[in-house]
Amino acid sequence: MWMHATCYLEFNTPVATPFLFMLRPRSGWQQWVSREQYVLTPSVPVVEFTDTFGNLCQRLVAPAGRFSVHTSVDIETAEASDTAAGAHFVEVQQLPDDTLPFLLPSRFCEADRFSEMAASIVTGWAPGYDQCTAIVDYIRQTKRYAPGTGQEINSACEVNERHQAVCRDMAHLGIACCRALSIPARMVVGYFEHLQPMDLHAWFEAYVGGRWYTFDPTQGDHQGGRVAIAYGRDAADVAIYTQFGDPVELLRMDVAVERMDEPSY
Amino acid sequence: MWMHATCYLEFNTPVATPFLFMLRPRSGWQQWVSREQYVLTPSVPVVEFTDTFGNLCQRLVAPAGRFSVHTSVDIETAEASDTAAGAHFVEVQQLPDDTLPFLLPSRFCEADRFSEMAASIVTGWAPGYDQCTAIVDYIRQTKRYAPGTGQEINSACEVNERHQAVCRDMAHLGIACCRALSIPARMVVGYFEHLQPMDLHAWFEAYVGGRWYTFDPTQGDHQGGRVAIAYGRDAADVAIYTQFGDPVELLRMDVAVERMDEPSY
Amino acid sequence: MWMHATCYLEFNTPVATPFLFMLRPRSGWQQWVSREQYVLTPSVPVVEFTDTFGNLCQRLVAPAGRFSVHTSVDIETAEASDTAAGAHFVEVQQLPDDTLPFLLPSRFCEADRFSEMAASIVTGWAPGYDQCTAIVDYIRQTKRYAPGTGQEINSACEVNERHQAVCRDMAHLGIACCRALSIPARMVVGYFEHLQPMDLHAWFEAYVGGRWYTFDPTQGDHQGGRVAIAYGRDAADVAIYTQFGDPVELLRMDVAVERMDEPSY
Amino acid sequence: MWMHATCYLEFNTPVATPFLFMLRPRSGWQQWVSREQYVLTPSVPVVEFTDTFGNLCQRLVAPAGRFSVHTSVDIETAEASDTAAGAHFVEVQQLPDDTLPFLLPSRFCEADRFSEMAASIVTGWAPGYDQCTAIVDYIRQTKRYAPGTGQEINSACEVNERHQAVCRDMAHLGIACCRALSIPARMVVGYFEHLQPMDLHAWFEAYVGGRWYTFDPTQGDHQGGRVAIAYGRDAADVAIYTQFGDPVELLRMDVAVERMDEPSY
Repeated sequence: MWMHATCYLEFNTPVATPFLFMLRPRSGWQQWVSREQYVLTPSVPVVEFTDTFGNLCQRLVAPAGRFSVHTSVDIETAEASDTAAGAHFVEVQQLPDDTLPFLLPSRFCEADRFSEMAASIVTGWAPGYDQCTAIVDYIRQTKRYAPGTGQEINSACEVNERHQAVCRDMAHLGIACCRALSIPARMVVGYFEHLQPMDLHAWFEAYVGGRWYTFDPTQGDHQGGRVAIAYGRDAADVAIYTQFGDPVELLRMDVAVERMDEPSY
Repeated sequence: MWMHATCYLEFNTPVATPFLFMLRPRSGWQQWVSREQYVLTPSVPVVEFTDTFGNLCQRLVAPAGRFSVHTSVDIETAEASDTAAGAHFVEVQQLPDDTLPFLLPSRFCEADRFSEMAASIVTGWAPGYDQCTAIVDYIRQTKRYAPGTGQEINSACEVNERHQAVCRDMAHLGIACCRALSIPARMVVGYFEHLQPMDLHAWFEAYVGGRWYTFDPTQGDHQGGRVAIAYGRDAADVAIYTQFGDPVELLRMDVAVERMDEPSY
Repeated sequence: MWMHATCYLEFNTPVATPFLFMLRPRSGWQQWVSREQYVLTPSVPVVEFTDTFGNLCQRLVAPAGRFSVHTSVDIETAEASDTAAGAHFVEVQQLPDDTLPFLLPSRFCEADRFSEMAASIVTGWAPGYDQCTAIVDYIRQTKRYAPGTGQEINSACEVNERHQAVCRDMAHLGIACCRALSIPARMVVGYFEHLQPMDLHAWFEAYVGGRWYTFDPTQGDHQGGRVAIAYGRDAADVAIYTQFGDPVELLRMDVAVERMDEPSY
Repeated sequence: MWMHATCYLEFNTPVATPFLFMLRPRSGWQQWVSREQYVLTPSVPVVEFTDTFGNLCQRLVAPAGRFSVHTSVDIETAEASDTAAGAHFVEVQQLPDDTLPFLLPSRFCEADRFSEMAASIVTGWAPGYDQCTAIVDYIRQTKRYAPGTGQEINSACEVNERHQAVCRDMAHLGIACCRALSIPARMVVGYFEHLQPMDLHAWFEAYVGGRWYTFDPTQGDHQGGRVAIAYGRDAADVAIYTQFGDPVELLRMDVAVERMDEPSY
């Protein structure tokens, strides 16, 4: 299926401010970018590079005053994410090298503190995919999804002490539990067509049965088109924008996602 | 300045045929892609990856029958390439690691055969940028630029035995001579606004004075906007399409390049 | 100067256990490995790969029973680390791409929580190297170095609430403060000749004045030979061994470091 | 099995001369380096980096006068290379991304010129491993292995016009034919225990049946321990030393390979 997604950001920057953006979905084996737009107003010099997770990152200095970024993408992606109940746990010694960083604890996923809790949650479940499902079910049952409440990023430990959380932070908890079971897990930030209210979304992927599978603690099932914008260990790696120096004001952020017909020429 | 460039390719593929395309200019420190389009007709699954030179490459299997690729890009680039007469030769031991592959001989740039000729051409010139200029001047004086005559790729040695060549093959000769002098040199394929007749273009870059500079044996000076599509050691690395299996027919190839106003939202 | 360093690890593994080791110092621009030994007893199959920080990592499955790793290295390194009082702060937009991951918060360096504290510590100091020195001085003045007390890894926030810490955790605090000031900072684990008692050591590097400089909150000055074994964002990235599955017993760990004559053949 | 291999190089360098060496076998999934030595006489500063093929490369400037490099390695490797008669051809669209550069023509493997010849050689053979075997058989039947005669590197085309060749150049011919059939093939330079007279050796690997397999046109079968020192597209990528500037004299080159007992501590 084809989706059209847009993200508009507008800032008030009192002084010239360096930014790092991560707002360009890449074509890969799960999605194909057919049309894309990335307009800066005012236009400033930009340098793009690829980070160690494969994300396309844009570096620029926003001038003093109003500064806006408007991106959009026409992209082909799956109608629904793949599922694979029963997919096996991959022994650590068999994991591909590039999955190993996703076994380690990270800023917002303190996997080293979740061994007992994760073991408890998955008691009775077969190692692998089904453990991930058990973790997602546990999160859904114990945390209330409260979109729009997440000004401050909460780590898995912090989410664990609360009753509600945003998508990003619930993903942190899921990731920390997976890693505590030696299942590689990574954060994904992206577009999701059914989000209410519309916003950027975050979920996670776990490596079981020989590939990455999508898990989403805040959305009820695996239906619906997704567009991955960035991958990383947790929210620290995949901020759609990182701003350096004195804080600037985000005046406006609009996200829109809709299905579209196949593009033609 | 802003440029709008398009490339349209149409094939007749008797049987399903694997292709590798390299048709997506990247944003980098010299150019910024603001809008882009990449439409396949019919639409087929594509996987994109980044090769070791940083090029975005698209892998797909074209179905039997007609198959077309239409790409376009809105891109900001410089009005004219930088020049730096007198820029110094960088001692081999000071070269950045990632320039070293561009010192070695490659399929179409047999640098190992050009030591004497290169030394002879640059006699009396200061090591570095001025040597590159001398090489380009030599090529211009001794070879006639004959666009459209290059069905078969000619290596530097082969160009050396002929009186005329296409842009790609004249670049091969320039690259081979630079490398023979221990100056890293790489092939660039891309768009150039002043080409007559319009087509894709090829030139080369040499690493002197601490950065890459543009050299173009077939265009008279450094004026004019350029868009790099792909970088590599020679034409073998930067084919805009590589087709595997039985040969297919290229029915049509159209390239267009024009200046445009700055995009806005 | 030349150093000979050895690390011996012995484990009791009740069941076959996957390990990830990071025990092979690399030759780079600061150190040259002239002789090296890496003996596993019993000998088991090993696969080595390079992680995203450039570290050589060894993957293996330790069999049930006693398992030991004995590594040694003859290496040339500097008599003392370089210092550069006054070296300037590098504007974020000028930083090399590969330093950017070292600006982000990480598992044990919650840089996002240290903006105020770091700003307070460096009041009056010139941006760059001197700020790093002020941070190191602050740590030395407020925390007691207590080698051997660090069974559990403490993050910068945790160190901040304590009066004493080990080298690794004091480095966490230094790194978090540097990053809070937009100075890239990374963890180094390695050998240091003057350690009392001898052990593996940890310090950090900050990117100022256009290169990485060594800072060591627990050692009084920059004298003494150092051998870097691994680089990373914090202790999570540079564990000399990571063990998966049920915990195993480390029976013995011996580290020895001494100066040696230049090797000859 | 365990092997001990040494390589000694001695040069007479009239003036200080930059060198690039590739003399450090890496541990990987096929071999494990347990002890290693790399002594330069006189000792000079060295910088090591990893090239795009994963080879460890050493950069240095040899001072005027005598300069020698003595390397040795204790390494575990297989008694004999794996064989897999019947292993299937991997469709181009299924090949891993990192095998694709080994499909392209390169300096000494002009695969673009071998389509007809390769097709003719493999007539009647099943696509994949058996085609590679047919190619190796063809080379053995038509070219005489003449060790020690290869001062100048010959490309596949050049070998094709001769009756005899060295191991390196016979590998070029095998590689060119494989690539012409869309089978990725790469050059390996390394140690081989049964070589007569002892020297460094070269062979090639082809990617069939989902992995790389060893093929050696100059040695009768797959018996015998091999140590890979470097991988590349052809001899241009894997020169054990590349010397820049005026030619220097190689006074002596000694290679020794022997089996050894498992190392212990």
